[in-house]
Amino acid sequence: MLRSYEKLYTPQTAAMEHSFIRQILKVTRGVPGMISFAGGLPDPASFPKETLARLFHEVISETGDDVLQYGASEGDVKLKEALKNFEEVPWLPDDQLMITIGSTNGIYYYLRTLISPDDIIVCESPGFPGSIAAMQACGARMIGVEMDELGMRPDRLDETLRDLTRSSAPVKFLYLIPEFQNPSGRSMDLARRREILRTALRYDIPVLEDQPYRELRYSGVRIPTLWELARVEFGDDELVTIVKSFSKILGPGLRLGFAAGPEKIIEPMVKWAQKSTVSPDCITQRVTARFIGEGLMHPHIERIIELYRPKRDAMLETLSLLMPPGISWTEPEGGMFIWLTLPEEINTDRMFDLAIGEKVAFIPGSQFYPAGKKRYNEIRLNFSYPGIAEIREGIERLSALVRREIS
Amino acid sequence: MLRSYEKLYTPQTAAMEHSFIRQILKVTRGVPGMISFAGGLPDPASFPKETLARLFHEVISETGDDVLQYGASEGDVKLKEALKNFEEVPWLPDDQLMITIGSTNGIYYYLRTLISPDDIIVCESPGFPGSIAAMQACGARMIGVEMDELGMRPDRLDETLRDLTRSSAPVKFLYLIPEFQNPSGRSMDLARRREILRTALRYDIPVLEDQPYRELRYSGVRIPTLWELARVEFGDDELVTIVKSFSKILGPGLRLGFAAGPEKIIEPMVKWAQKSTVSPDCITQRVTARFIGEGLMHPHIERIIELYRPKRDAMLETLSLLMPPGISWTEPEGGMFIWLTLPEEINTDRMFDLAIGEKVAFIPGSQFYPAGKKRYNEIRLNFSYPGIAEIREGIERLSALVRREIS
Repeated sequence: MLRSYEKLYTPQTAAMEHSFIRQILKVTRGVPGMISFAGGLPDPASFPKETLARLFHEVISETGDDVLQYGASEGDVKLKEALKNFEEVPWLPDDQLMITIGSTNGIYYYLRTLISPDDIIVCESPGFPGSIAAMQACGARMIGVEMDELGMRPDRLDETLRDLTRSSAPVKFLYLIPEFQNPSGRSMDLARRREILRTALRYDIPVLEDQPYRELRYSGVRIPTLWELARVEFGDDELVTIVKSFSKILGPGLRLGFAAGPEKIIEPMVKWAQKSTVSPDCITQRVTARFIGEGLMHPHIERIIELYRPKRDAMLETLSLLMPPGISWTEPEGGMFIWLTLPEEINTDRMFDLAIGEKVAFIPGSQFYPAGKKRYNEIRLNFSYPGIAEIREGIERLSALVRREIS
Repeated sequence: MLRSYEKLYTPQTAAMEHSFIRQILKVTRGVPGMISFAGGLPDPASFPKETLARLFHEVISETGDDVLQYGASEGDVKLKEALKNFEEVPWLPDDQLMITIGSTNGIYYYLRTLISPDDIIVCESPGFPGSIAAMQACGARMIGVEMDELGMRPDRLDETLRDLTRSSAPVKFLYLIPEFQNPSGRSMDLARRREILRTALRYDIPVLEDQPYRELRYSGVRIPTLWELARVEFGDDELVTIVKSFSKILGPGLRLGFAAGPEKIIEPMVKWAQKSTVSPDCITQRVTARFIGEGLMHPHIERIIELYRPKRDAMLETLSLLMPPGISWTEPEGGMFIWLTLPEEINTDRMFDLAIGEKVAFIPGSQFYPAGKKRYNEIRLNFSYPGIAEIREGIERLSALVRREIS
């Protein structure tokens, strides 16, 4: 039987492509001697294995009848309580908070709530391909806004929104990773955050703030989120919805995150959750509630920071020592990525094959731009997963390759 | 700020209603002395708490670096191996199987793969409101087909498909719960399964087979699934996609199920999973793989059957003893529900309020029909959650109420 399922696909299903980045990761995985800066994985040394093993045992032994039963689609009320304490928003009403299956899941429900095919989402360029793929799968048209060293440029955002508004285009929201952005590692300072919010408010465009790396700050000072700033400085508690994740803290295998925003957004998101997953894993939620409740989260995050800071420093130092003139890179205050810019004439798609030959891997910058708007002289480097010796050796290989390329 | 988020909702988001059944469950929960046959919950006594507590501890202690890391969107290869053994399909290619976050999640990805707004799904009437709500949220139009004691009637299915095909309506698939159906408790015998498959093949309509209760058989003989029959008897290994769940076996708090079907369906389903949840919980998957691998699943299921069979029998026996003439009910060979039919003139929506007064709860049958096609003289009774003494007492209260209603 050769039934033609393709003819039955929705237009969005038919248009979905295989992720090129996933293919890159497959090519580099398991190759002996390969040093990979390509992925975006946490270091397994950051996983609190012993504590989690104990907590899972305790939670199931003590509350198994409860946590093995069906749970609320909006999430476990005990995890909500713990989270509100951890995030220092004890006043937050429960109906402005939902637990999600990682932050991707929160973004997905936000999309389902607002995005019909051909609706517009305004985002950073370069941007995070994981989110962009989900947005495009829902039929959204992505409009990228140019960045500078402080993230999205407010003047360019203003121009973009002005043009879109004039043509009555269906702009649904603005998507931002304001801290340690993926792929660039850039962060908005306080003034930039204010400018972006002012612009969004001027055009009355909701903001989806993606903050997966916020707790991983290795230097500089903590700045309020857009979600907090909108409320506290602009008196607007409906503008911003924030999504965060436990993937970079407890481990991505747990699949846990949360979304906080106006009830008018969280309520339909919960309805979408009912229909697509029923609820997040209830045991995992209760374990995470206990992890926070026992006061383990802050010291654990401190340990991760002490694990990642020397990795970032080793990569920055080796780049400084070995990269030839004319190459620049971001110096992120946190997160997992450094963004390297080569001279315009270098094509990093092509350089990728040479790099694999030298046993060092990265993601070519072109992967972070939409078709037709690609730039080819950048690369993304991950420093959270490889060890420090690997980082030094890998940057040495990459620097030697870059020297050959530009000479 | 009174931003009008409602204006930004998609048409599907705007149309989503609150689940009436969830409201019923809220009304009945925690009321002292209330006996509820309304829910669809497993008995917590069926949860293998001690084993799960041990396995979670072991899996995290021994393989934490692996199971806390990002996992494959199609599911853990070790769970796939264990499942293929358990389901006795060791030959099944990995790309015809995906792990899902419960069976609701498998149904949701199948919907996303095939359903655009106004596409048609043909289903049983009465049907399972959880699935129907998800289908309607994706914009599907639901066409219900009448049932008899053996489930969906093939003659009525044939008529329905003939009419739809003549009008070139976009029929995407046929959705069935062929065993211990929710809400009716009815099961298709082998001849019925063959007839339904023959009809689907005649019109070349794919089948989505939902089998959440299959392992919970208390009497009668096990019959091949539609998924197996299509392959073995009709030589068609692409017609049927099956979804199953661990919710009724290990506990719904775990959020784990799977889907098996043609690669042309499973592959896009996995792409949707990437975009909406990344993957199921990796620890839970590995724990379940070990649970099966250690040979614990079959004896555990035997224990659940021994727990639920006396409950079913107690409910059937008490109904026989106490219900007045003119009332009929299904005698399910498995699952969690009995379907009671009262005389036409009785309205069970109205009777529900009286029953709450008598401290016994059920779901009125009207909740299982689409608007405009409702029948009002039926009720769904759950026997998996209440204890045996509660079952006897609750049916006594219900019978007394029915006697008063029909006299």
